[in-house]
Amino acid sequence: MIEVSKNPLLSFPEILLRGVGQVFFQNNPWTGLIIIAGVALSSWMAAVDFLLGGTVATLVARWFRADEESIRNGLFSFSGGYVGLLVGIFAHPAMDNPVVELTVYVMLGGVLAVPLTSGLTHALKRLDLPAAMFPVVVLLWAILAGILNTGLADFSAASPLLADHPDISPAYTWKTWFFGITNGFGRVFVQLHPVTGLLILVGILVNSRISALMALLGGCLSILLGYVFGQYEPILRTGVMSSNPILTAVALGGVYLYFSWRSVIYALLGALLSIWFMVAMTVILAPMGLPATVLPMVLVVWIMLLGGQTFGFVEQVPLSEVTKPEEHMKHPGR
Amino acid sequence: MIEVSKNPLLSFPEILLRGVGQVFFQNNPWTGLIIIAGVALSSWMAAVDFLLGGTVATLVARWFRADEESIRNGLFSFSGGYVGLLVGIFAHPAMDNPVVELTVYVMLGGVLAVPLTSGLTHALKRLDLPAAMFPVVVLLWAILAGILNTGLADFSAASPLLADHPDISPAYTWKTWFFGITNGFGRVFVQLHPVTGLLILVGILVNSRISALMALLGGCLSILLGYVFGQYEPILRTGVMSSNPILTAVALGGVYLYFSWRSVIYALLGALLSIWFMVAMTVILAPMGLPATVLPMVLVVWIMLLGGQTFGFVEQVPLSEVTKPEEHMKHPGR
Amino acid sequence: MIEVSKNPLLSFPEILLRGVGQVFFQNNPWTGLIIIAGVALSSWMAAVDFLLGGTVATLVARWFRADEESIRNGLFSFSGGYVGLLVGIFAHPAMDNPVVELTVYVMLGGVLAVPLTSGLTHALKRLDLPAAMFPVVVLLWAILAGILNTGLADFSAASPLLADHPDISPAYTWKTWFFGITNGFGRVFVQLHPVTGLLILVGILVNSRISALMALLGGCLSILLGYVFGQYEPILRTGVMSSNPILTAVALGGVYLYFSWRSVIYALLGALLSIWFMVAMTVILAPMGLPATVLPMVLVVWIMLLGGQTFGFVEQVPLSEVTKPEEHMKHPGR
Repeated sequence: MIEVSKNPLLSFPEILLRGVGQVFFQNNPWTGLIIIAGVALSSWMAAVDFLLGGTVATLVARWFRADEESIRNGLFSFSGGYVGLLVGIFAHPAMDNPVVELTVYVMLGGVLAVPLTSGLTHALKRLDLPAAMFPVVVLLWAILAGILNTGLADFSAASPLLADHPDISPAYTWKTWFFGITNGFGRVFVQLHPVTGLLILVGILVNSRISALMALLGGCLSILLGYVFGQYEPILRTGVMSSNPILTAVALGGVYLYFSWRSVIYALLGALLSIWFMVAMTVILAPMGLPATVLPMVLVVWIMLLGGQTFGFVEQVPLSEVTKPEEHMKHPGR
Repeated sequence: MIEVSKNPLLSFPEILLRGVGQVFFQNNPWTGLIIIAGVALSSWMAAVDFLLGGTVATLVARWFRADEESIRNGLFSFSGGYVGLLVGIFAHPAMDNPVVELTVYVMLGGVLAVPLTSGLTHALKRLDLPAAMFPVVVLLWAILAGILNTGLADFSAASPLLADHPDISPAYTWKTWFFGITNGFGRVFVQLHPVTGLLILVGILVNSRISALMALLGGCLSILLGYVFGQYEPILRTGVMSSNPILTAVALGGVYLYFSWRSVIYALLGALLSIWFMVAMTVILAPMGLPATVLPMVLVVWIMLLGGQTFGFVEQVPLSEVTKPEEHMKHPGR
Repeated sequence: MIEVSKNPLLSFPEILLRGVGQVFFQNNPWTGLIIIAGVALSSWMAAVDFLLGGTVATLVARWFRADEESIRNGLFSFSGGYVGLLVGIFAHPAMDNPVVELTVYVMLGGVLAVPLTSGLTHALKRLDLPAAMFPVVVLLWAILAGILNTGLADFSAASPLLADHPDISPAYTWKTWFFGITNGFGRVFVQLHPVTGLLILVGILVNSRISALMALLGGCLSILLGYVFGQYEPILRTGVMSSNPILTAVALGGVYLYFSWRSVIYALLGALLSIWFMVAMTVILAPMGLPATVLPMVLVVWIMLLGGQTFGFVEQVPLSEVTKPEEHMKHPGR
């Protein structure tokens, strides 16, 4: 079990920051601190929404007497906070009085995230699968669609993927790679500021070199694929193609599967699949006006873990023992 | 096990009426009798469709040698009947020769409801969840979409939520509350007759005062929420906002969770969530032209029960022991 | 366990052909040989796509050390091959350079099919359900929607069901029955060549007379239903109404349920349901531009098996013992 600070004045912020780190599967408050600083640099409002949603969710989880270890690992601050941040970003343009309305919705998201997260985590354990961001996306869609009860605002319009563009793409340069990958980190929080992305990468590196490496490999793969298939270059620069493969590569490369050259291959196959799923879901959800966000990654991680459970090729870390890639490799029997 | 009348002439009607009561989670033939009378008052055709679908489903379930206790508890008369009623109401406008065609479709719904209900009930038991209306809604959608094989009639148009309305809402008066709540009961059967709603409430009261109380609290919450968020008043009067929270509050407040002040809070949180889900689903389903009906309630009940299984805050009644709220409280160990 | 040829030069083609047969639930290489010949007669490119996708999937499954018995039964050659064939057919019109692009996509489909098929098969085993074509359809949708990342080509337009047609149907003749049923077999591979259909029927007959009989009954039911409900005759001739009930009748009539007059009735009820689901899904998926293909059959088979597990009326063959209808009847205890 993770040791959380015994000083109650410190333990609560620690839980909140662990929740931030969990977005990139890093259960480490310093990682969380660096990441949330990176987000605040791009949008202080987004950072506030995350912390507000995370605070409400953690308090409600305590009140509901949810599993104490999950609370301390930041499960609820993660999902309440992340749904708060996403609701804030997507719903903002549809609001007359954003400060009051967003506060209400972010807090509502934080409350509702608790049963959804705890229940789905519990149900998915039977398949040895993590709930990851699944509860977050379900709740995000419910709140987004529910906010506008006549005529759905087109939240999917926020995706650069669906924008019109010329047939001829500008040339791919080092900038494509640099911004495509760094913005891929920021895109997880729907931020478009390269320093945000760099700080997130540093935050991951603080906790796990393996995760940072996998994140970079996932990001490179998305740019490479865009290059091979002739994707319109400015789309890649927004990071919209990279966020899902980055998260998928991290999740499969060491966090949920024991790290090895085989799991690297397997994780990159998952990252490849997540790019397809992301494009597919963005298109499929467009008529309903909803954003896919990180759902493609969640589905791909589930598919690859379910598959991995049946293959001799890779080995899954038992869910109750998931900490970080480097720790997993120390365990006896590996 | 519920004792059903031993007189075969009486046992079959008793099973049918228990099925009617099950729509509001009340396994009581007198409740069913009062409710179906209330429905018939508003539309005798709807009542006939329910009884026809329920009869077919019960006979088919017997023929298939389904679980006898489930048959006697009205599981099949409930789901075959309810799908029959809903198919009748939504499909009616699309028919050239309604009497013949509806009879065929209602009977078809009754037959198909049997494997779907029995199978899903069986599968969901592994998660300690009730199937509730899930099979009904799935079958309803399949039949509605299947009826028109070129160009979907817009069944979602039946939702007052999606109709155009002026920006300024008329004032909320006692009538908003009275009709909003009573029509919320009737809306479960897509009926708009206040006496129907009152009779349903009386029917619930005959079986369980706790359920009747929870139903009223769920109804009040929906009007309150509409008031706070400035929902257009005539929408509320149709009861379309109240039906899902009423059912959610009943299901979570005593039926599937042991009744306590904590489960009342938890049930009302579920009722709140069901309002969001209802608005969201109505909007999401609109491009496909399908009605959400009570599916939001089912999903919310699942989420809250799955969550509740992991919380110390509330306690779930084992599915095999679900009878009625007052009975549950008598059990030892509570 | 199935005995596969020990000669490695023969075992690989045998695995590929078993995979072809598995599309009609026939684990028999001769059946596969006749079927793939029938497909090649109508479109040699479709046959090549199947064999290419199946080869890639089988090699990847070996590399991943997937369950050896599943590999030998053609599970991976079936799903990789079938997804390859379907991707080839639906995506072809959207391609500038079909030969190169399709080869890439068909191979991609073959790779991705492996974790998806193995994982879902593993997960569904807990409910005693076969994954069947579910992974195939999920992957098909992901690839189709992902191919075109701005503006979805309308792949559902390939369905004759959605085409405009006059109100008055031409008369039903023996040709309706003959072509409607034979094309129903071919339609599973999206082929419209009556000899293809006849060869598939012969292929099934080589392995199992019961399956061939059930296939014909399922096909007849679809034409009969079209006749009763006045479906526009040329639609029926394309076989689009028959493919799902044919597969459903085969799956439930002897393959997954022990064969008896009761399971024949039950299978035909499933076939009936699959027609509704097929029409419903085609219509529901139209706004997203995706084809339903055989998903209706998969869902109906799941529903009927889940239901069947709870009924005394029919008995399910344990998944690990599924071979062919005639074999199942020899087992002791039947």
